[in-house]
Order: sequence, then structure tokens, then C-alpha cells
Amino acid sequence: MPGFLDKLLKILQSRRGKDMRFLCRHLLSQRGEASQTALAQEIINTYAAMDSTQRTRFYKMLSSEFSPDTKVLHRAAANYLEDPNETNLSLLSAAVEPPRQELLRRINTAPRGTETLVAIRKHLLDLSVKSPDISPLDADLRHLFRSWFNRGFLTLRSISWQTSALILEKLIHYESVHEINGWPDLRRRLQADRRCFAFFHPALIDEPIIFVEVALANGLTGDLERLLDVNTPVLTSDKVNTAIFYSINNCLDGLRGIPFGNFLIKQVVVELAAEFPNMKNFCTLSPLPRFSKALLDTHDEHGFTPRRLSALLSDYAATLTAAARRRGPVEAFFLLLEQPVANRDVLAAPLSRLAFAYLTEARQNGKVPDPVASFHLSNGARLEGINAFGNLRPYGLKASFGITINYRYVPDELEENHERFVTAGQIRISDALSREREIVKKAWHQDQA
Amino acid sequence: MPGFLDKLLKILQSRRGKDMRFLCRHLLSQRGEASQTALAQEIINTYAAMDSTQRTRFYKMLSSEFSPDTKVLHRAAANYLEDPNETNLSLLSAAVEPPRQELLRRINTAPRGTETLVAIRKHLLDLSVKSPDISPLDADLRHLFRSWFNRGFLTLRSISWQTSALILEKLIHYESVHEINGWPDLRRRLQADRRCFAFFHPALIDEPIIFVEVALANGLTGDLERLLDVNTPVLTSDKVNTAIFYSINNCLDGLRGIPFGNFLIKQVVVELAAEFPNMKNFCTLSPLPRFSKALLDTHDEHGFTPRRLSALLSDYAATLTAAARRRGPVEAFFLLLEQPVANRDVLAAPLSRLAFAYLTEARQNGKVPDPVASFHLSNGARLEGINAFGNLRPYGLKASFGITINYRYVPDELEENHERFVTAGQIRISDALSREREIVKKAWHQDQA
Amino acid sequence: MPGFLDKLLKILQSRRGKDMRFLCRHLLSQRGEASQTALAQEIINTYAAMDSTQRTRFYKMLSSEFSPDTKVLHRAAANYLEDPNETNLSLLSAAVEPPRQELLRRINTAPRGTETLVAIRKHLLDLSVKSPDISPLDADLRHLFRSWFNRGFLTLRSISWQTSALILEKLIHYESVHEINGWPDLRRRLQADRRCFAFFHPALIDEPIIFVEVALANGLTGDLERLLDVNTPVLTSDKVNTAIFYSINNCLDGLRGIPFGNFLIKQVVVELAAEFPNMKNFCTLSPLPRFSKALLDTHDEHGFTPRRLSALLSDYAATLTAAARRRGPVEAFFLLLEQPVANRDVLAAPLSRLAFAYLTEARQNGKVPDPVASFHLSNGARLEGINAFGNLRPYGLKASFGITINYRYVPDELEENHERFVTAGQIRISDALSREREIVKKAWHQDQA
Amino acid sequence: MPGFLDKLLKILQSRRGKDMRFLCRHLLSQRGEASQTALAQEIINTYAAMDSTQRTRFYKMLSSEFSPDTKVLHRAAANYLEDPNETNLSLLSAAVEPPRQELLRRINTAPRGTETLVAIRKHLLDLSVKSPDISPLDADLRHLFRSWFNRGFLTLRSISWQTSALILEKLIHYESVHEINGWPDLRRRLQADRRCFAFFHPALIDEPIIFVEVALANGLTGDLERLLDVNTPVLTSDKVNTAIFYSINNCLDGLRGIPFGNFLIKQVVVELAAEFPNMKNFCTLSPLPRFSKALLDTHDEHGFTPRRLSALLSDYAATLTAAARRRGPVEAFFLLLEQPVANRDVLAAPLSRLAFAYLTEARQNGKVPDPVASFHLSNGARLEGINAFGNLRPYGLKASFGITINYRYVPDELEENHERFVTAGQIRISDALSREREIVKKAWHQDQA
Repeated sequence: MPGFLDKLLKILQSRRGKDMRFLCRHLLSQRGEASQTALAQEIINTYAAMDSTQRTRFYKMLSSEFSPDTKVLHRAAANYLEDPNETNLSLLSAAVEPPRQELLRRINTAPRGTETLVAIRKHLLDLSVKSPDISPLDADLRHLFRSWFNRGFLTLRSISWQTSALILEKLIHYESVHEINGWPDLRRRLQADRRCFAFFHPALIDEPIIFVEVALANGLTGDLERLLDVNTPVLTSDKVNTAIFYSINNCLDGLRGIPFGNFLIKQVVVELAAEFPNMKNFCTLSPLPRFSKALLDTHDEHGFTPRRLSALLSDYAATLTAAARRRGPVEAFFLLLEQPVANRDVLAAPLSRLAFAYLTEARQNGKVPDPVASFHLSNGARLEGINAFGNLRPYGLKASFGITINYRYVPDELEENHERFVTAGQIRISDALSREREIVKKAWHQDQA
Repeated sequence: MPGFLDKLLKILQSRRGKDMRFLCRHLLSQRGEASQTALAQEIINTYAAMDSTQRTRFYKMLSSEFSPDTKVLHRAAANYLEDPNETNLSLLSAAVEPPRQELLRRINTAPRGTETLVAIRKHLLDLSVKSPDISPLDADLRHLFRSWFNRGFLTLRSISWQTSALILEKLIHYESVHEINGWPDLRRRLQADRRCFAFFHPALIDEPIIFVEVALANGLTGDLERLLDVNTPVLTSDKVNTAIFYSINNCLDGLRGIPFGNFLIKQVVVELAAEFPNMKNFCTLSPLPRFSKALLDTHDEHGFTPRRLSALLSDYAATLTAAARRRGPVEAFFLLLEQPVANRDVLAAPLSRLAFAYLTEARQNGKVPDPVASFHLSNGARLEGINAFGNLRPYGLKASFGITINYRYVPDELEENHERFVTAGQIRISDALSREREIVKKAWHQDQA
Repeated sequence: MPGFLDKLLKILQSRRGKDMRFLCRHLLSQRGEASQTALAQEIINTYAAMDSTQRTRFYKMLSSEFSPDTKVLHRAAANYLEDPNETNLSLLSAAVEPPRQELLRRINTAPRGTETLVAIRKHLLDLSVKSPDISPLDADLRHLFRSWFNRGFLTLRSISWQTSALILEKLIHYESVHEINGWPDLRRRLQADRRCFAFFHPALIDEPIIFVEVALANGLTGDLERLLDVNTPVLTSDKVNTAIFYSINNCLDGLRGIPFGNFLIKQVVVELAAEFPNMKNFCTLSPLPRFSKALLDTHDEHGFTPRRLSALLSDYAATLTAAARRRGPVEAFFLLLEQPVANRDVLAAPLSRLAFAYLTEARQNGKVPDPVASFHLSNGARLEGINAFGNLRPYGLKASFGITINYRYVPDELEENHERFVTAGQIRISDALSREREIVKKAWHQDQA
Repeated sequence: MPGFLDKLLKILQSRRGKDMRFLCRHLLSQRGEASQTALAQEIINTYAAMDSTQRTRFYKMLSSEFSPDTKVLHRAAANYLEDPNETNLSLLSAAVEPPRQELLRRINTAPRGTETLVAIRKHLLDLSVKSPDISPLDADLRHLFRSWFNRGFLTLRSISWQTSALILEKLIHYESVHEINGWPDLRRRLQADRRCFAFFHPALIDEPIIFVEVALANGLTGDLERLLDVNTPVLTSDKVNTAIFYSINNCLDGLRGIPFGNFLIKQVVVELAAEFPNMKNFCTLSPLPRFSKALLDTHDEHGFTPRRLSALLSDYAATLTAAARRRGPVEAFFLLLEQPVANRDVLAAPLSRLAFAYLTEARQNGKVPDPVASFHLSNGARLEGINAFGNLRPYGLKASFGITINYRYVPDELEENHERFVTAGQIRISDALSREREIVKKAWHQDQA
């Protein structure tokens, strides 16, 4: 008997799924226009009650059925080609826009509409098999979000211990760079020598979109532990001269690909410069998350080939081989790297050089392979410092062999740095690193000589 | 010499105009991406300093220079026609979107961006000569505004005497249906038996987008003076059973064509129904702004032809001719209409009938010619009442010969009424008016029998 | 019959009055303790419904019936005199406190309690015949208010055009120094080069207690019109170096005698100094409201006796007699004073001297007779300037013969000035006025030589 | 040498102590009036820097030196005795008020003044040896606080997960009835079927004065664990019919003796009744904190004498002696009580009876000995239920042998219950308990028969 009931339930549920087709058509119809908000509400509620199978079916239905009218579009394209005047252009433009976009805009008219659409895109992106059947829906959502989540509609809020627990709890949840270990950890990150800023969108109440955590320090550091330790004494504001951006997190998966971080960092620089007229430095303390993987992959001809490793490590050959009791420095290096912390004194210098080489020389399809580096450099930041064993936490050792990077934001040079990086792949480097650069360059390209 | 100085100034100013081209190109370029907000700010400031000549030139520049790349678009259209697959569709879609839209989105990233773009569209629409040279810019602004000013991003706020003077002052400024004569008049409109609601957009601080004024009454009235008189006693809330929407105003010319009124009225109905569980009636007290003009134009074959007038007025022939000492009732009617208030006893019934005929029978290109009627009927409201001499104020007499109309919003029938009206031009009418309708119909179409 | 009904109504009303005795006793009783808030609410409502006769009776009842228990107090006083130990002191202290105070504190527990008690004191003070029968009630209210309206419980708020109309309307109502002529006048007083600050008390929502209006100016002025004229151009903030306090108003009559003004001015000086680091001067532009009356009263031996007038005016004898075609300068002066504005050129200097003499030499019971002068000088301000015809408005001419005074607040000298003034009647005077002071002193006291 | 430095430091610090005498005299003086706020600020800062020895000295100084002028008071008392008229009364009243009160009022004028005064009283009460030297200061602070913390000046705020972490953290700190075990525990106490309300005072920002925690339940329970368990499912609001006040906490020791709890509970009853029209029951779930101690003290002739115990337990003699293998039920009872949870089945009934007897019959100086019982009963609540083993947490077993009590607030009977309890010691009891009452009474007073 339960088999029968299950079946019945499935049928009812699938009918509910059919209802969605009806509801969506109705919402787009002439008749539905008078009760958009109510219909949109019903679509939102129905969606919330769907299981994952129904959702996938729903996405496919939206992707296939609310596309541009092929006939109309053909005619418009043909007419435009025949006579490319303003009217035909505008008719073509209208014909190419899928009705799906208007449908999504109408769903947005109900309370929690934006929230639901962002959730839909999250679910969509979560689907393990990326189906081309649903990419039109993804494209339309992305198109709308780029417009709706324009910087002009975001508001910056300072997050502090005065903020509601509801929002603070979300920071704990969303922080993925340096995990927040409960409320006492969060509390330390919000004390007088720390700052946290987030972007919010008016349609997503109590929901941070992206946030950045900043440590106010006396001088730059590459040592993460000094920033994160709950027991670090609180610095008084008169001693502060450096702002260290040590964590930046996008919160909503549904907004993937919509750029906020660039705007957030620059806005926070402006805020902090206003609050602390004596602030000299705006830097990050960042991971190099793909460094370990790249270093261990000696088969990538664009990466750390044995020959390059050998050249890069040659300056440290004596100490490495002595420490590891091995003949070749490369072999010695990798042996020592199996216990990086124990061998930190010997490894610090060679690791820094390799990280530097990775950042400045390694390219994949002409691009900087590390996403964090790529983000800050394309924002116009310069490469300020490389710190061996700056992050001794397990995840830091695993992904970056403990390396931390300081990128520095110098307002006056952002535009030029950005352009050079984006158009020519050039990286601006601090003076302190310039000699090292020559060495690295030579070592990397020795075979080309 | 002043001539020389003027000339120099002009040159400098025109160069400033050229700067705008540079700034806009820069903002759209790779290089400009890193400093979008700063560039956008400069464009906004430069625009604010422009005179009207420069502005017009700026609009033309934007309209002509930031359009889709013709070659790319041609190729995309041709490819799509050849092989209308998903990829080609998406390439065509990308090719048809003018870079102008991205430019406008980037201008929006700076503070006051939205405000400036809305102002630009206002100025654009204000231009006396509608130039086709600027319609692409208008189309793009309109496209963006439809998306940005989606109902889901608007917040409803109740306006009261507790609201800031800054906002209240704007109500005085924007009210154009029934002018607010200074602060005491406004104060009466915000007392305990009145309500005022407005939509706001988060990016336009302290700026109402649209607002509606409501009188809470005991029973429906068509008499405007009872609502507007500053000395009308305040009704206690236990006696309230009818909400009369007596004025609705769009505030920002730059948002013309973006529909808010529909959403506002329906949301306010929901709010008032929640506050007053005993509220039975949600009606408007509206003008019939094109009635006078239509009545006096006896040459329009779709309107009040002499034959129709004669038929419509035949029931009142005796009283009209007696009062005006004229033989024909039509002639008598128009004579009396020269002093409508003095002759209100005689004119009330015939004017009501004519107004009714105008609403239900007169059509221009198949459409109801009066914009207010068209708005409420297409929202799904029904025609509830017609009141002769409901508005004796000069503008009321001039435009509507004193006629006021009650449209009624009955939540359950909105969707059906809307559909019938929009698709078939049918108007839902209150039972009380149904007999009159037959008379009017017969009189209007007598010649067709 | 109506006579009978009236009678009945009176009886009912008077019984309601009796109820108040019952309610008050009940509220103070053991039994009433459990429902203090409800009982207090009933007392508040009953009071609100009382007419003035009932109120007066109520005040008398409270004054006579809720006084200390005479027997207990006698015993406590006798015991204390016999053995003045700590216990007897504390018993005496308890015995002398009238139960009325506890009653008033309990009335205060209900919503609008504070508002009602402040209103009661206002009504009390308004009573034309000051009856000793009600002074105990007044004394107790005053005692409580001094404690409740302690500076520590007041909050300073900046009032601007962003403030609610509800509060702004009250400013218009309460302003009594320089009447606010409607909303446009108020608007000018709240623009970018004006400031307005008020104290609020948390228990009196939306009710300013006291407020001060400040003009931000470039240099000090004694000319009121430049400050009040609605069309005066708005000064940009970079040109501001002087803050002129031109109007300060207590709002609630019921709080008469509770000092706020002193605290308000000093707090506002602190606020403005923080906002404008370059602000050099904090001055008032004040009336001299009893000057006219004093000047015309030549029979007051402590005031402007004919001999003193003659001596004070002797320097101006020639111009006065020439202008008035009179022999004696005093006679000439008073004749010209009948049309002060017409004769302003001749009168300006002598009027200034007389005003100066009035401020610095005239004393009533050893005190400065002008209340505004007394207020600022006892706050520690110095006398900075005297301006003839600074206020040409009718009330300014009538009360002060157009004289305006600048008192200046110099933070560092406030304490010393205050002490000298309060203990020795000494007035600190600006250097510019010091020579004039010698002349005036000599003229005033010539007969003593 | 360090000895010398220490000495010097002590001298300097003690001089700082002397400064306080000077500062306080200065603040009360004529001269100090002009700079009250600044002087008060300095006193506050100086106090904050004091160690406990200095503080004690400071309290003694305030207590001895700012008392009423003995001579003036003697004269006023004598005059009043001679002629007890209104004037002499008012002079006596003025003479008996210690200048200390005015001093404290002036200290309150500075920012953080109220906070400091409340802290002073806390420190005062903390002093291990209660010195009569400081009781005058305590009396004056208490006198002022009774006036300043009048119910009319307190605001009720609902505390939720939306509240700032700063305030929530304080709840965790101040909760002393049922400890909050970190943020997840707190979170459960703020979910949809829980409420928390607190009183705040406007001068103590972000500082709750007193708060109450309420569980919304379906039916009354005496079982604490069901309320406190973090994993208890959240009840939907349609099922709620009973509000259970399970914890009420005063936050500021410095306000000891100022009554808030009474007002808070009644206000919260009003709030919940408005939110849930179907709420039938407003009850507490309270401890009986002195029950264990009273039960074990068989030597108190007003308490559980062996004879009374024997009589009260006689009904349960059989089961008790069987379970404990002892002859006498009293002896058996106490043996079983050594492991109360293990023997809960046998102990439940006898423990309930003893708790009931303790509440209704045991008296100390004619008063109910349990403070929680005394609080609720004198608020006018009735005794609704007694629950054996309602609280199995260690502190519950230790203090109350696991007993929990339900007191019920029935709005209509509060006043009468309060009066009977306060004047005659009578306790209102639920009908369900009335038969038990007769048994208990008889058993307790058997020897009087």
C-alpha cells in the first residue's frame, strides 16, 4: 500500500510541477499582468516546495520554453540585414530578448523575489552535470543580476559587535578563507583594531553580499597568526599606520561571476583613509592557493619543470643538500618539503623564490594561474611582499606551503597597473623585489638563451 | 572685449564637451575599469555643469557613437540565420546590445549615478524638438530603468506629519492633480483620517517616485471639496468604511513610461485592508481630464456628433430648453454650459449622461480616449460612479466640466476586468449604472439601427 | 429643564473630581501598589477631562491632603533635636518628605505620565491668582523636575530640514524671540549656514525642551536683519568663522525655573567647535528687553535719573540739540526718540552709551535688571558689543529701542567670569569697550564725587 | 629603590584622592556652576582610575563631609516645632536634604554620569564590611535612583536574534537563574517560540536593567528541561496558549532595591496578550531556592520540626519505609533524599507536599521565607502548581531538591491577591491545590489542636 501512496504523491507533485508551467505562462500573459505580484508569490512558494528533481525539470522547462520566438527573430534578422536602419535594429533587439527575462523580472516583483532568483541560480550552478539544457536560464539570470547588483545599488555597511547576531552569524557561516572558530574568534575580529565591511543589497535584507576583514596594524606583516590569534593585544588607534586586508569572501553562490570585490576593496580604502588620516599602507595578506599543486606538478611545461627548479634553487644548493643529505638540491628540496615546518629555516628562502617565480613567470594560456593573484593584480594592486611560512595553519600549508602574499593598493597607480596587467600581463612589483625578479627571470628562461 | 571673453568661454566649454567623449570612452575601456567609480563621478560632475546646448550635443554623441558594432552585428545576424543554434543566438544577443548600456551601467556605479541618469532622461524628454538622433539613448535608459525600478526594488513608505520636511516639501512640489496650497493644506491631508503612501527607490534617497493620497471616509463621495477642505472635521477611525484615492502623482519625469501606479494602488489596498478590517470600499475620486475638449469637438465622427448629442440629451429636452429659452436641447445645453455652475441643477443629469457615454462609447483607434480612465480600467477597476459638479475648482470645471469619476478596486475581479478591458475593450460597470448603460448605448449607436 | 440637566452634569463632574481623591489615595495605598500603572493611567485620563475649576480644586486637594504627617514630623524633629544621630536624621528626612512626592512619582509610571505632570505645573503657573494653597504642589513638582530633567538625561539633537514636520511645527510655535513667519522663514533658518539644536527628554517624545538657533557667519554682526532675511544668500562653509546665537527659547512652561539654557549653549559651542575647527568666535545677538522701559522711567533713583542722563549725553549735546531744535540735550534726546528710526544717525551713539550704562551700572537690589543680560553674564559670557539699531523690527524698537547686544562665550574664561559676576556683580567687558566704560562710570557716579 | 618608588606613587595617588575632595567642593560651589559638566567629567575620570582603597576613602569622605549643616538643621527643626507653618516646613525640608544629593545630581550631568553613579553604588554594596560610615552615601544614591529609574523613564525592548551581539553578550553574562551555555544556547532561547524582554534606561545605552525570558508553550509545564533543551523542536505560533516566564534577572547590582520586576512582568503580560489573543495562561516556572536548606534544618521551631515532618509524611509512610528499609518514614525520607533522582518515584509526592507546606505555612518573622515566592505572591500572582523533579540540573537539585513552582498571573485578581498577601500574609491557591492545603494545614498545626 505505501507503494501506492508514494505513487500518488509523485503524481500530485509532478502535477504541481506542471502548475509551474501554467503559472509562468499566466504571469507573462495579458491577463496575469493585473495580478503580477500575487502570481509571482505563488511561483515563489511553489518553487520553495520543490524537490531537486522537480527543480531540474523546472529549469529545463524555463530554458526551453521561454526563449525568443524563432520566426519573429528570423524575420527581424533578415530585415535588419536587408536594411540596417534604426527601426530594424530596435526590432531585432526586441526580438532577440528571450521572454524568460521578462518572466524573471515579474517573479522579482513579489516579496522575496530577488532572494528566490538568487537561490535558483545557486541551485542551478550546484547541479553536478552542467547541462546545456539549462544554460539559457543561467545566462538570463546572470544578465539580470549584472544590472540589478550594479555597484550603485549596493550599500556599504560597517560590521561590528553592535551588529545584529543574525548578520554576524552569517559572517561565521560565509567566512571560507580563514575559518571563524565560534563567537569569541569573531569577537576578536571586530575589536577596536579590526574592521569589517560588507556590501548589502536593498532587496536582500540582513544578507551580506560580500565582506572584507581588515586588521589595523603598525607596519605590514606577512604573519597570519599575529592577526588571527584571539589573544593578540588590541592596538590603540594612535599606533595604526597600516591596513591589512586579510580575508575577503563572496557570500552568495547565486551571484557567482558578478564582480563586487574590486569595488569593495577600493571603497574600504576610501573609508579607512578618511578615518585614519595617517594610514600609509593598504595591503592584503593573501594566500597563494594553487601554489602547492603547481609546485608538485613537474610535468607542466609552462610550470616548474625540473630544469627551472634546478636553476631557481641553485643559489640554495649548499644548504639544501646539507640539510637533506642528498646530492641534488631539487631532490633535497622536495624531501625537506615533506616536513615543511620542521625544515622552515632551510626552506624559507627557496620557497619564497619559487613562489615569486610562480607569480611572475608561470602562465596558463597567457594568464596568471592563481585566482587570488589574478584578482588583486587585475584590480591594479602591486606585488609588495612574499612571506614564507606566513600561514602555518593546516589549510595554509596544504594549499600554499605556508606562503602568504602581500598585495598593495596604491590609489594613484591602480589604473595604470590594471591596464598593463590586463592588456600585457605585466605585474608591478615593489622596489624591494626588483633584484630578485632579475634572478628569477633569468633562471626561468635560461634555456631560451 | 566681452565678446572675445564670451567666445573663449564657449571654446573652453565646448572642449569640456569633448572631454565627455573622452571620459565615456575611457570609462568603457579596459584601462578605465580599474577606476570606474572615479571616472563615473567625473562624468556626473561634468554633466551637472553643462548648459542645455552642451547637453543636447552630449545626448547626440551618446546616441550615435556607442551603438552596436555594425560589422559584428551583421556577421552575427547572418550566422544566426544560417545556423540558428544556441551559440549563435547568444552571439547575436551580445552583438545587438549597444555598448551604451554598459556605459550607462558604469556611470551608475558612482554616488548619485542613478539620480543623474534619471535627470538625463528628464532633460531628454523635455527637449522641445524630438530628435530621432537621441532616441537610441532614450531607449537604452528606458530599458535599464524598467529593470532597475522593478517593483521588487521599490519600498512602500507611509508619509505622515512625522515625515521629514525635506520629503513633505517634495509632495507639495510634485502634487499636480489637486495642488497643495502650502503647509496647512498638506497638514490636513496627513491627519488621522487621511493617508499618503509613496514608493521609494534605495538609490534615490529622500526622493519619492510616486505617491497616492487617500481619504478615509464614511461612504463613498464624488464631492471633492469635502475631501480637500482644510476645515473638514477629522473623522474618527471607528466610522471609516471607505478609502477614497483622490490623487496619484508620478514624481520623476525621467521615469516616464515605467509603470508604478498599478503596483502602488494595489499595495495600498492591501495595507489599508490590514489596518481597517471593516473597510468595504476602495475607490478613486478621479478627474475626466479630456472630457471638456471632447464634448466641445462636435466634428469628431468617433465622438459627440450632433446626432449623438441630440439623442443623448433627448430625455432632458424639456428642462434644457426651458432653462435656456432655446428651441433645440443641444443648442440650449451648450448655452447653459457657458455658465455651468450657475446652471448646475439643470445640467447635472445631462452632463453625467454625456460623461458616461464618453467613457463607455467614445473610442480613439479602439481605445478609451481618457488617460485616467484608461489607467484605472486597465488596472482592473470597475466604473462605480459618475458625479456631476464633483469638482468645482477652476481646473476641474475647465478640463472635466466639474465631472468626477469613481473607479472601484474589487480585489477578486481585478484580473478578469483587466483582461476583458485590455483584450476586448470591455468595461465592468456597477449595477447602479447598468440601466443607464442601455440608454446610452442605444442613443450613441441609433444611426446604426 | 436644561437647568436641571446642567445641574446633574455638574454633580456628576464634581463626583468625578471626588474620584480623584479616591484614585490618589488608592494609588498610594498598599493595595494600589499592584496596579500602579493602571491607576496612574486613570488619574491621567481623569485629569485630561477636567475643566479649569475642577483642576484648581484638584491642585488644592493635592496641596493640602498629601502633606507630611504632622504628628510624625513633630516627633521626628523633637527626637533629632534631643539626639542628632544618623538614625534620627534619617527618620527626620523621611518624615519631612510629603507623600505627595511619592504620589507624583507613581503617576509618572504610566504612559504620558511625565507629559501630564509637566502640563499640571504649566496650568498651575497659569492660574491668575497665585494661591498659597497650591504652592506645596508646585514645590514638589519643581523638586522632582530638577531631578528628572537633569542634564545627564537630556539628549542634544540637531534640528534640520530633515527633521519631522511634527517637531518643526513646534519650533514655529515655541519661537518667541524672533517670530518664525511660516515655513519658508523656518526653511531659511535651517539652511547650510544656519544651525538649530534642541534638548529632548526621553519621556517626552517629539517634544523639544529648549532650542537655540545659530547663524554661521563671516565676522560678528549686530544687525539682526542680515541674519533673519529669508533672501540672504547662503554662506559656504569655508567662509564661516563666527557662530552667532540669535535666539534661544524654552518650550515648556511647566519646566519654568529648571535651568537648561546654560548647558545647551555650552554643548552647542562644543559641537560647533568640532564641526568647524576654524571657528573663532561664539557670540550671541541678543535683545535688551527691559531697556526701553528703564530709559523712560526717570523717577527710579537706581536708574536713569535726569542728572545721570544729562551727564551721559553731554558728549552728544551739540548734535542732539541741533537735530531737535531744543536747548537741553536730554529734552532733545527724548523728542528725537519719538521717531527713533528717522533719527537714527543722531541717536545711534547716545543710545549705545545709555544701553552700556544700563547694563554696567543700573542695578536693582544689586542685580543686573535685564533678564537676558543676567542669563548670559551668569553663564560666564563677556559683554562683547552694543549695536544701535541692530533690530528694527517693531518689537525690537519697542522693547530695546532697537539695541542689540553681543555676548561672547570664551571657553577658558567662563568659570572665572561666572564667579565674579555671581559673587561680586562684576562684568567682563571686551577691550574695545573699556574706554567707554570709564566715561560711563564717571557720568553715572558723578554726584558721588 | 622600588620601595621608594612605590611610596612616591602611593603619595601621588593619595593626593589624587585629596583632589576628589577639592573637585567635589568645587563642583558644588558657585564658581563651579559655570563648568559643571567639565568638573563632573573630571570626577568621573578620577574615580575610574581609583583603586579599591581610594574608593573606600572616597565613599567615607562623601558620607561624612557633604551632610546637612547641623546648625542650620537644628535651627530649622526648632523653628518648625515652635511654629509649624508652611514656610518653616519648607525651610526644614531644605535643611534636611544633604548637599551630597546635589553633588550627585551634578556628577550626573556629564556623559557616563549615571553609569558611574550606578557603579559607585555597586562597589559600595560589594564592600565586605558594611560600614555605617558609608550608609549616608548609599541612602542618597538609592533615593536618587528611585526617582531616576521610575518606570516612566524605562523603555521595554524585545530582545531577539536581531539584537546586537553587544547586548546579547550581556544577557549571557547577567543570566544567573539558568546559566546560558554560550551562543547556541542563547540562540535557542530567542527562537520563534521564545521571547525575551528587557527594560532599558535612556542614560544607560546598550545596558539592560532587567530582563525576563519567556517560553511560549502548549499547556503549562513544570519540567524545566523541555524548555531549556537546545534541541527542543520550535513550536508554531498557532499551537501556543501558555506563556511560561522561566527566568527573570536583575542586571545591575548598583540598582539593588529599586523595584523593576513587578513592572516588567505585568508589561510583558500586556505585550504577549496583544500578540497572542488566544493566550490563556501567564505562569512562571520558578525555583524554590531556600527549600533545601529549610528542609534540612529540623531545629527551626518555625520550620520543619520532626513532629511536623512526621505528620506531613504520614500518608507516604508505607512506600517510604519500604523503599528505604527503615522503620520511621522521616528517617527513611532523609535517607532516600541522599540520592533524590534515583528515588524520584518514591520521593515525588512527599517532596511536593513538603514544598507546599514550606510555601504556605513556614514563616520567618511572619514572612514567607523564600524570596522568589515572596516576589511573585506580593506581585499578586497565585500559587498554581508544585512540580517534583521539575529541575534536575545540579543547582536545581541542590537548592530546591528539584522542585519547581508555577506562579500564575491572572490580571483581574492581581490587586486583591497583592493586598491580602501584603497585609494579611494570605496566599491565593489554585483550586487543584485546595484539598492538599487542608491536609498540610492540619499536619503543620496538629500540636495546636
